[in-house]
Amino acid sequence: MPTFHYPRSMRNAFHEELDDIGLSLIAMAHLVKKAMDDATAAILGPDLELAEKVIAADDAIDNMQHDLDARTIDLMARQSPVASDLRTLVTSLRMSADLERMGDMAHHIAKQARIRYPNRSIPTGLVKTIQEMGRVTHEIIEKLASVMETQDLDRAIEIAADDDEMDKLHRELIAVILADKWDEGSETAFDMTLLGRYYERCCDHAVSISRRVYFLVTGEYRKEEF
Amino acid sequence: MPTFHYPRSMRNAFHEELDDIGLSLIAMAHLVKKAMDDATAAILGPDLELAEKVIAADDAIDNMQHDLDARTIDLMARQSPVASDLRTLVTSLRMSADLERMGDMAHHIAKQARIRYPNRSIPTGLVKTIQEMGRVTHEIIEKLASVMETQDLDRAIEIAADDDEMDKLHRELIAVILADKWDEGSETAFDMTLLGRYYERCCDHAVSISRRVYFLVTGEYRKEEF
Repeated sequence: MPTFHYPRSMRNAFHEELDDIGLSLIAMAHLVKKAMDDATAAILGPDLELAEKVIAADDAIDNMQHDLDARTIDLMARQSPVASDLRTLVTSLRMSADLERMGDMAHHIAKQARIRYPNRSIPTGLVKTIQEMGRVTHEIIEKLASVMETQDLDRAIEIAADDDEMDKLHRELIAVILADKWDEGSETAFDMTLLGRYYERCCDHAVSISRRVYFLVTGEYRKEEF
Repeated sequence: MPTFHYPRSMRNAFHEELDDIGLSLIAMAHLVKKAMDDATAAILGPDLELAEKVIAADDAIDNMQHDLDARTIDLMARQSPVASDLRTLVTSLRMSADLERMGDMAHHIAKQARIRYPNRSIPTGLVKTIQEMGRVTHEIIEKLASVMETQDLDRAIEIAADDDEMDKLHRELIAVILADKWDEGSETAFDMTLLGRYYERCCDHAVSISRRVYFLVTGEYRKEEF
């Protein structure tokens, strides 16, 4: 059941096109998950070949967004949707923008892996933290793709709690960088500052999409709570 | 002449509402420019009072985006626009998202000023670079607001060239952080890494809006050239 599913009785060509857009968004989420997984493996390796693959794959994500947005706007023009259909299409544009930015984060991580290769930018003391950040990111995007498919609001709300785990890891990372005993030099401080931000921003966008799913289903934002 | 100006002969209630949305976007750009100016002054001071002011003012920018987007979607629902009118409204949603993110960058800079206060996060050797980044940002947003008003495509294209200046300053900043002789410690490396990124991202969003103006006027993106 894709994001923009309607009861069979209401189904028509328009809603089938809406469904297709929902399916494409879910496919995009899976592409982004793969890109983030590969980026994490590339920077932890370090693995230059994998880094190059992530960098090249970002074009596919960008193209997917352009294609999706063109279809969405075309559908708006042809069908003049109102109420919840219009809301769905506008939300689709916003979700694709969030997913495209998440893909950019994978691209940035892979570029850091490439620029420091054959060295590894991550110091030994932070390997576990970055592994954890990669793991949490994977789980968040996996849950997000499932929420986009099932519109399960309980799980949508869970994503904000999962992101608290990312924020905690990010704070730990920052504490290590800022500690007096830091002796990894400023290049590593620079790399780890950005790397932490890439993971944190990626998951922020996932939370943002989970809020949009909530909005699509209920017609309102749960802004305070999650 | 606001962004979404139409010849008088075509004017009607719909186009007046479009014009109003264009005017609100321009007003939002001016708010963002002021926020970035104040954030730069706050972090260079350091000036705690000014930092608090920028942090509080970010809510006003966020609210302006919500209000603008609500009006834009309402207009879509009531008027079922097609072709260039639909394109204008969709582009308006994207511009307001860019402007909101630019406001976030001012907010981040002000928060860095506040957290390090009464110390100044910027080391003496980077004061001039940050002053320059603040100046370039001001000029880019000022030009952007004017481009949104006049739809002057030559000036829209200039904004990408102005952003090259920001990229150059950003590279200079990174070179200082990464230099062997860096002796400011990892906290300052952390702060300067993020600060550089905030200015760079803010101007990236301005370039993105200038491309959207180009798209609105011509119906196509000049993706390669700028």
